[in-house]
Amino acid sequence: MITWSTLTFDEKREALARPAMKDSASLKATVSQILAEVQSHGDAAVIRYTQQFDCPSLTSLRLSNERLHELAEQVADDVKRAIQIAFNNVKQFHEAQKPADIRLTTTPGVTCEQRFTALDTVGLYIPGGSAPLPSTVLMLGVPASVAGCRRKILCTPPNQNGEIASEIAFAARLCDIDEVYLCGGAQAIAAMAFGTESVSKTDKIFGPGNSFVTEAKQQVSQRADGAAIDMPAGPSEVLVIADDNANADFVAADLLSQAEHGPDSQAILVSPSSSLITAVQQAVEAQLATLSRNHIAAKAMENARYILTDTISDAIAVSNVYAPEHLIVQVGNARSYLPAIQNAGSVFLGAWSPESAGDYASGTNHVLPTYGYARNYSSLGLLDFMRRFTVQELSKEGISNLGPAIMTLAQAEGLDAHKQAVAVRLNALAQECDQ
Amino acid sequence: MITWSTLTFDEKREALARPAMKDSASLKATVSQILAEVQSHGDAAVIRYTQQFDCPSLTSLRLSNERLHELAEQVADDVKRAIQIAFNNVKQFHEAQKPADIRLTTTPGVTCEQRFTALDTVGLYIPGGSAPLPSTVLMLGVPASVAGCRRKILCTPPNQNGEIASEIAFAARLCDIDEVYLCGGAQAIAAMAFGTESVSKTDKIFGPGNSFVTEAKQQVSQRADGAAIDMPAGPSEVLVIADDNANADFVAADLLSQAEHGPDSQAILVSPSSSLITAVQQAVEAQLATLSRNHIAAKAMENARYILTDTISDAIAVSNVYAPEHLIVQVGNARSYLPAIQNAGSVFLGAWSPESAGDYASGTNHVLPTYGYARNYSSLGLLDFMRRFTVQELSKEGISNLGPAIMTLAQAEGLDAHKQAVAVRLNALAQECDQ
Repeated sequence: MITWSTLTFDEKREALARPAMKDSASLKATVSQILAEVQSHGDAAVIRYTQQFDCPSLTSLRLSNERLHELAEQVADDVKRAIQIAFNNVKQFHEAQKPADIRLTTTPGVTCEQRFTALDTVGLYIPGGSAPLPSTVLMLGVPASVAGCRRKILCTPPNQNGEIASEIAFAARLCDIDEVYLCGGAQAIAAMAFGTESVSKTDKIFGPGNSFVTEAKQQVSQRADGAAIDMPAGPSEVLVIADDNANADFVAADLLSQAEHGPDSQAILVSPSSSLITAVQQAVEAQLATLSRNHIAAKAMENARYILTDTISDAIAVSNVYAPEHLIVQVGNARSYLPAIQNAGSVFLGAWSPESAGDYASGTNHVLPTYGYARNYSSLGLLDFMRRFTVQELSKEGISNLGPAIMTLAQAEGLDAHKQAVAVRLNALAQECDQ
Repeated sequence: MITWSTLTFDEKREALARPAMKDSASLKATVSQILAEVQSHGDAAVIRYTQQFDCPSLTSLRLSNERLHELAEQVADDVKRAIQIAFNNVKQFHEAQKPADIRLTTTPGVTCEQRFTALDTVGLYIPGGSAPLPSTVLMLGVPASVAGCRRKILCTPPNQNGEIASEIAFAARLCDIDEVYLCGGAQAIAAMAFGTESVSKTDKIFGPGNSFVTEAKQQVSQRADGAAIDMPAGPSEVLVIADDNANADFVAADLLSQAEHGPDSQAILVSPSSSLITAVQQAVEAQLATLSRNHIAAKAMENARYILTDTISDAIAVSNVYAPEHLIVQVGNARSYLPAIQNAGSVFLGAWSPESAGDYASGTNHVLPTYGYARNYSSLGLLDFMRRFTVQELSKEGISNLGPAIMTLAQAEGLDAHKQAVAVRLNALAQECDQ
């Protein structure tokens, strides 16, 4: 237990430090090589890597829609229902995010507009691994679908049999995703960034992944011939603020929810109550033993931090500095503290709002800025699947009204042709009047 | 004049190719070194570089507010009026972009919110050079001010006398920018990304610049200890679609407005009228001679392209592939083509809407995606100075309704602790009911 008020400035910084991310030259070089191979050899390179890492017998990247449909049908009914419930909530919440176009007359005869339009082609990456992640399919596929992206391409690594989990297939079909490709890792990101014979080049790539995927996303986002990406990535994290009234079992379960994601997950409890902190520490020990992924969670909890502050306001100040991906506020009248919260990806208010609600089914998106990026990046939302552009239309009256100011400014900036573009028009109008 | 319909696929691609951007290892290394120096030595390093490149006598980075005020007062009255007119229009249009928070009940007892909040500290970069750029101060400063960013930091290189142009000072004061630092180039970007004794670390850096500035922005945006940036940058460009009714002088002036920005600027005319194209080519020659920056504009116009299409629709298809930063549509009933326009940073409709209107004063932002990024990046707007985050609050009813689905999904994904975080709450509720 760390007593915040006794720390020096440097100790405070240390207490909230995140683990350094590996800046591995060999990872960069490996990924760069994979990108170059895929760019040069297209499908052949992607298939070769997929055979090497995922499925030795793979010969075609595309999962047929027929097979996608068959797989989707195999999902157990209760899981289907649960995915459908999550889908409904995520869809409602993202539909509510639809932006309105703006049209405004700034000066008589001068109309300005801001318009929103869906990105044309988006790439959705779903990691493989020991368990399927249908929830991530929903978190990417629903906003892409609601935005109205013309093409939605999903890449996910196949299993040894060249197939994907039925839950992934079911969620993909709910989101109207009908292009599923059997590839993962940096090669999948390369395929979606550059395009291959099978996989369309995409405008933007979304989704979580391992260090190869993350590095590949960074690299393609830096290239003009690549693709935009959703946001930078880092280890996942939760910060819980709790007071004396909090239920220690609830808090412990929330910390462990985060911890089981991976050994580098960060779990932080900040509380003005030392008795609550002690109770949570005991509850964590008790619950840890019951988890199937307890080796992962235990490893992450070695780096958990329990910070004792003087007040709840101090705890919020700590959170604002840390800028957590998930912030759970289990204090009396939690909502009253919302205006004071500055930097967080997603906020969970009150005792009955576990992180797993947002991870799965409340309706909010679970793709969130990690690693302190909550101070300058947004949680994923509908707007990330759209583009804004502007339109202006000046009438003769408009250019007459605004032209002189434009010419003065162009002259001040030494840009003759900018001035001339107005002058030729004002001259033409003057001639019209003379006639 | 290129006749579009006679081109092969590869020739079409070639006709719309942008100049390759230098991927210079020495530029990267130089910038990387400057970033490291500023990160290690703070103000001392920034002052040293500024003495070397801009002002040998500089000893302090901060331009005092008193001096800022004095400089602002020196602006000629007609320029003050013109800047004020532009400011008013830009402010109106960006105020109209204020987003509304969202609050929604997705399932009884489950409330989800999307909230918008201003970025805390933003860094605005204004290039130096032969002429001052007060318009760019407005395009960055107005949205930062309208968004409500707590701190707005402006960096611009000083002249030989350690001062800045009075027009910059005047525009900065209109935008309520009260922290102006006398530094430019990669060292200014480093100062705003990492912070120094004088310059606060910023959350996001905005603004155009030379190749050092662009490279520095890219590098700091890739670092977790750096800052986010507005968008990737490339040479500026315009594509004009014009028909037989268009005024060749207007079109020529618009092409030249773009061309005078720099020798790498791109100017493209696409038209179904060969007579219009010929007339524009002649008008360009005539107008070129009158420009003070004619050597720059002439160099850019060497790479100008004149593309003849069969129809206006074909011209729009060409534009959609090219994805221009600025798209000027000088055809009869220009607005009717707006729904067909897919990828453009800002659209100028009709004969009376020159690019310079948007560059200066219509109200739209002149910071726009270049180099084809209009297909996946937005034009700069108020939302770029804000963050979205989500909030969820479940009541007892909410967790009772949604908990079973969350548990099913957590189980399907093999995440016990996520399931447990719901189970402990449902158990607690069951016990409450039993009592």
